[in-house]
Amino acid sequence: MNYHITLMFDGTGYHGWQRQENAVSVQQKTEEAVYGLFGEKTNVTGCSRTDAGVHAQNFHANFRTEKILPPNTVVSGLNFYLPDDISVIACEPAAADFNARFSCVSKEYHYLFYDTPYCNPFYAHRAVHSKHKLDETLMDAAAKAYVGTHDFSAFCAAGAAVRSNVRTVKKAGVYRDGDTVVFYVEADGFLYNMVRIMAGTLLYIDEGKIPAGMIQEIISSGDRLLAGKTMPPEGLYLYRVNY
Amino acid sequence: MNYHITLMFDGTGYHGWQRQENAVSVQQKTEEAVYGLFGEKTNVTGCSRTDAGVHAQNFHANFRTEKILPPNTVVSGLNFYLPDDISVIACEPAAADFNARFSCVSKEYHYLFYDTPYCNPFYAHRAVHSKHKLDETLMDAAAKAYVGTHDFSAFCAAGAAVRSNVRTVKKAGVYRDGDTVVFYVEADGFLYNMVRIMAGTLLYIDEGKIPAGMIQEIISSGDRLLAGKTMPPEGLYLYRVNY
Repeated sequence: MNYHITLMFDGTGYHGWQRQENAVSVQQKTEEAVYGLFGEKTNVTGCSRTDAGVHAQNFHANFRTEKILPPNTVVSGLNFYLPDDISVIACEPAAADFNARFSCVSKEYHYLFYDTPYCNPFYAHRAVHSKHKLDETLMDAAAKAYVGTHDFSAFCAAGAAVRSNVRTVKKAGVYRDGDTVVFYVEADGFLYNMVRIMAGTLLYIDEGKIPAGMIQEIISSGDRLLAGKTMPPEGLYLYRVNY
Repeated sequence: MNYHITLMFDGTGYHGWQRQENAVSVQQKTEEAVYGLFGEKTNVTGCSRTDAGVHAQNFHANFRTEKILPPNTVVSGLNFYLPDDISVIACEPAAADFNARFSCVSKEYHYLFYDTPYCNPFYAHRAVHSKHKLDETLMDAAAKAYVGTHDFSAFCAAGAAVRSNVRTVKKAGVYRDGDTVVFYVEADGFLYNMVRIMAGTLLYIDEGKIPAGMIQEIISSGDRLLAGKTMPPEGLYLYRVNY
């Protein structure tokens, strides 16, 4: 059976999704849970790599097993084996050719800032602190310039080699939710560190380090040095994946 | 100078407020921060003991120093020395006789449940999961019976010896906030484990293990065995202290 599962995880304690030597990954924990429940060694395919410390509200994955169990049993069974910072929140039998990575149409990420005068211990590792009040209206207006089909080379970590840096951003914006300020962006794909550099550019715009109307120019330049800093991973959430 | 500070802390990593041998406490971390900033060894008096794993939105404390620094500097200076799961969020010079413990008029605690179908990794160590939907209206109505001046022996951990078990509960109730359900209770003082037993009794009422109208009878009985279970510490927050 090809199972399609949805995971929620607090990435603080993990070196990202991808299994690797000498570091604990969410993929490894998930594969161990599948082995615990099914007694079968299988590769769990994730919808994307995520960096160390990055979180997910909805991370999609699939895996194939010989044994067949009801989806409800897969959810509760995997959760029995998973640590409490990773949860399976849904499971469904998928078409034989479903692949969590390649069947994906678009992804939405959220980047969380908060702007209380003091650091809030309950946001530690979960959102990035700004000492000054953020201007979410200014940031939202600026973020709209990300929308469209562009070469996003200026928003890609140096050294990342992919065939094309053209991506289509379907929506982008910034809103306030109490003392948190959320940057959301949905695209058909993302370059390495793209959301974190986009978020850093909006922060620089808020701080007056980059002029508010300059994002289009930065995109056109293709120059990473014109964009803002790469924000730390702990504010980043994979929020939704569309198939 | 007698400084009155307000702390916010995620208690997950601490054995409560109170300094003790062989375990890290919030008091120890705070006293180390005061020593780092002022270079003076001093006792920091907390408004209450808290158990291991219990959190605080507003924990009040005071300490006396020879050196005088402006309150803003005390806030930022202590935060420089404190780990990111403890924050000083306010500081003011206090009257010479102010004592964070004995000057306190009342305290308000919150106990957090959440009731999504799955465990939420972002609530781990911060709220207690209920697999079934909680009936906050039923729980709220039941909680009102806590209000008043009563002998709360039935809501006190066995073996806790204090002079009197009479306390005055000023307000109590339950409300929903999205997928979290909050039990709040304000009183002039609390017995050992009182809030956690009160919360456990409300949970038992929700689950039909204790009849909804029985709290008054449980109070009158003075019998710990009639009340609900002692809930785990991670759902408990010291929410507000009134002076």
